[in-house]
Amino acid sequence: MPEIKQLTSRAQNYSQWYNDLVVKADLAENAAVRGCMVIKPYGYSIWEKMQAELDRMFKQTGVQNAYFPLLIPKSFLCKEAEHVEGFAKECAVVTHYRLKNDPSGKGVVVDPDARLEEELIVRPTSETIIWNTYKNWIHSYRDLPLLCNQWANVMRWEMRTRLFLRTAEFLWQEGHTAHATSEEALQKTIEMINVYADFVENFMAIPVIKGVKSANERFAGAVETYCIEALMQDGKALQAGTSHFLGQNFAKAFDVQFVNKENKLDYVWATSWGVSTRLIGALIMTHSDDNGLVLPPNLAPIQVVIVPIYKNEEQHQLIVSQANRIVEQLRRAGVSVRFDDNDTKKPGWKFAEYELKGVPVRLAMGARDIENGTIEVFRRDTMEKQTLPMDGIAEHVEQLLREIQQNIFKKAADFRQSVTREVDTYDEFKVEIEKGGFLMCHWDGTPETEERIKAETKATIRCIPIDGDKTPGRCMVTGKPSAQRVVFARNY
Amino acid sequence: MPEIKQLTSRAQNYSQWYNDLVVKADLAENAAVRGCMVIKPYGYSIWEKMQAELDRMFKQTGVQNAYFPLLIPKSFLCKEAEHVEGFAKECAVVTHYRLKNDPSGKGVVVDPDARLEEELIVRPTSETIIWNTYKNWIHSYRDLPLLCNQWANVMRWEMRTRLFLRTAEFLWQEGHTAHATSEEALQKTIEMINVYADFVENFMAIPVIKGVKSANERFAGAVETYCIEALMQDGKALQAGTSHFLGQNFAKAFDVQFVNKENKLDYVWATSWGVSTRLIGALIMTHSDDNGLVLPPNLAPIQVVIVPIYKNEEQHQLIVSQANRIVEQLRRAGVSVRFDDNDTKKPGWKFAEYELKGVPVRLAMGARDIENGTIEVFRRDTMEKQTLPMDGIAEHVEQLLREIQQNIFKKAADFRQSVTREVDTYDEFKVEIEKGGFLMCHWDGTPETEERIKAETKATIRCIPIDGDKTPGRCMVTGKPSAQRVVFARNY
Repeated sequence: MPEIKQLTSRAQNYSQWYNDLVVKADLAENAAVRGCMVIKPYGYSIWEKMQAELDRMFKQTGVQNAYFPLLIPKSFLCKEAEHVEGFAKECAVVTHYRLKNDPSGKGVVVDPDARLEEELIVRPTSETIIWNTYKNWIHSYRDLPLLCNQWANVMRWEMRTRLFLRTAEFLWQEGHTAHATSEEALQKTIEMINVYADFVENFMAIPVIKGVKSANERFAGAVETYCIEALMQDGKALQAGTSHFLGQNFAKAFDVQFVNKENKLDYVWATSWGVSTRLIGALIMTHSDDNGLVLPPNLAPIQVVIVPIYKNEEQHQLIVSQANRIVEQLRRAGVSVRFDDNDTKKPGWKFAEYELKGVPVRLAMGARDIENGTIEVFRRDTMEKQTLPMDGIAEHVEQLLREIQQNIFKKAADFRQSVTREVDTYDEFKVEIEKGGFLMCHWDGTPETEERIKAETKATIRCIPIDGDKTPGRCMVTGKPSAQRVVFARNY
Repeated sequence: MPEIKQLTSRAQNYSQWYNDLVVKADLAENAAVRGCMVIKPYGYSIWEKMQAELDRMFKQTGVQNAYFPLLIPKSFLCKEAEHVEGFAKECAVVTHYRLKNDPSGKGVVVDPDARLEEELIVRPTSETIIWNTYKNWIHSYRDLPLLCNQWANVMRWEMRTRLFLRTAEFLWQEGHTAHATSEEALQKTIEMINVYADFVENFMAIPVIKGVKSANERFAGAVETYCIEALMQDGKALQAGTSHFLGQNFAKAFDVQFVNKENKLDYVWATSWGVSTRLIGALIMTHSDDNGLVLPPNLAPIQVVIVPIYKNEEQHQLIVSQANRIVEQLRRAGVSVRFDDNDTKKPGWKFAEYELKGVPVRLAMGARDIENGTIEVFRRDTMEKQTLPMDGIAEHVEQLLREIQQNIFKKAADFRQSVTREVDTYDEFKVEIEKGGFLMCHWDGTPETEERIKAETKATIRCIPIDGDKTPGRCMVTGKPSAQRVVFARNY
């Protein structure tokens, strides 16, 4: 019999627990290429569900998908000064377009005669190539707004990588919109951060704080960066999505002008916004436990598993026919259900495996259940078992899935609330930051103070929250005036 | 008013017609990066429909999606001798992972200190990185079959490129399966070529010949390559999809062994199969005409457009209320419909534009139609107009869409039949090949004869057909025995 896979516990080593879980639950693994990952079918099917829902939400706002090239000429990157500063240090560079047989006789080598005149960069993000393209698409206000998104792979040559959270290559979507006015672009920026917040909270069951980044944490080339910030179980923050108001920076860098309604030439206003496979890391670290994954039913590749328990073929047959009936009822209701009738694995092994994989509901059926007209229902989020009448079980499971979706959101929100607190002095801050969580503090608004706090405590300003308390106060470090509390945390 | 876009006619210059059409129908355009393309929203929405249907069909056969890295270590490529021979000459090579400020003060340069120890290749196809990964996934026959697919971008540094047909970067899916026996792998190879044929014929309305490639035309590293071959309107063939039986070649190259049912170590058997954005090129060149795109309703981003024709606001309002009713009825029936009420463009311009874009059905409504309870129905495939009663128009349109789907397939099949002929002498062949089409000829089965024919006539063996006439004969060139006729053509 195959062994039951053991995880390191969170208390023992949180970081090891995460790595163990990603690998043992078959979500992803490190690839042979430094810093890259292989997303395995189980992990990829979660990404597919995320993609489908996000794509639907984007299209509802009028966005269309398109596809732009993987490789970006080096000179494009340089056209926006802050942008190149932000990305040049972590770029994979294509310099040649051919290999040839090694003259020494073994293998192949780069053909020195096939050197590119201009090096090409594997996109770290696509503002530059897209704005270079938009130049030809936009002439008049009638061509605006232009609302494109692409689902793509990007590369950032990170030095320290972790599966899903920070990998050299990752999958994401990047939206790039063009507008006739500053107001409209800003409105779009905010609309998209709201879409992300809606998706992450209601679909992924991860509570987030919506806010604006401080200048230090802004996207390279943006005028303003909006973000959603989540809190992981170890008390560290994770940036779950960003939406950038780019002003006219890229339009100016690529000379994208249009004739406005007043018949005057003006530069186009821009936004960009993205979420990535990093969200899968957030999903894992928000909900999962020492037994394995906990998945919100909206994202679970398998929502319900049925495990038969029997001693002989006669019992087996009775269970099979009951199980098939339940499978059919649930499928009709749109629930994804697996009847695991594999006889090379014992029920105990299956229980552990499906707990590890985060299947929200497990139904177990034994000979006695058939006699009594009952079934055992196990919910993954609370690990609670109940024996219920077989009659009406499909309806019960549908209701239970909705309840689980809500419960895991609530659990995460309660946790977040329990580790979010107001801190008013820098001394207190230095003690509290060691305990993790969100610290709501007054800050004088200067990069200097922010940098000092980061250098001394490793905490950054995650965002200046949009909603909530707007009472002014005094900076906890300098005592200077502060317009409102901001969110500090250590972060992924 | 915007100008109506003019296309070069097919008779005038087929190749220019194709390029004009791709650009003017807003499908794609050349990118700033040599040989790469930007797929515009209208073109991409066709690709999305193709993806959705193919993905559904793959999953029905038990295939799951996954994602493997973009970059492949150079040494991996070398492990399968024929494979590296086939791909090394057209590889984009990443040699560095960082840029730095140009010491001379302007822009950025490649940082010579950030040279990779081993160069990385942008994947031209993923057999090598995937089989290197499968090594860790497969230990026993219980781990088999392993059925993965990925939707990805790939690069082949082609010298002469054309939008969709041959681009340096393209989008595709690549399936990679692993099996315990040769028979099962071969069966999977054939199953997938059948899936492709089904999809291309019934969804894209493109008739294809299923066959096996000659040794010369086989995929680099395959034991056998199955393919589907389509015929374009200019009489040239286009390979529309391939499915490869890889034998144990990649398992041996990457040392992927498993314990079989007899408890003995054996190498794993493999298949791979793919179709790409090239199919959009095939779609365009099979159906479209001098007025623009002709799209099968199954793939049309907009299946029905409604154009109002009015002289005053009163007429306009009457038309709007009728149009909204039809829109609602059609949407309920799952038809994608657009009511184009844009008053900055005249009806004539709209007619031409939607013909160019290949919208299968156009409904036009004027004041007289409202009076008479009629509507004008135009079908794009035949360019026929009819005035019909408004009553029951939604049902009529649904039926018409089905009819158009069938009709354009039939039209393409009739055309193909009209230019497919048996040729028995090489002299006749040299004359006939100039006229285009599929020539069914006897061939002695040797690479030498095939190469001679290619050198002298630019025609290649597109495939050895699986179905149809299996009568033996004598090679048209050498007179040696031939098992059956094979398909010759010039090709894209």
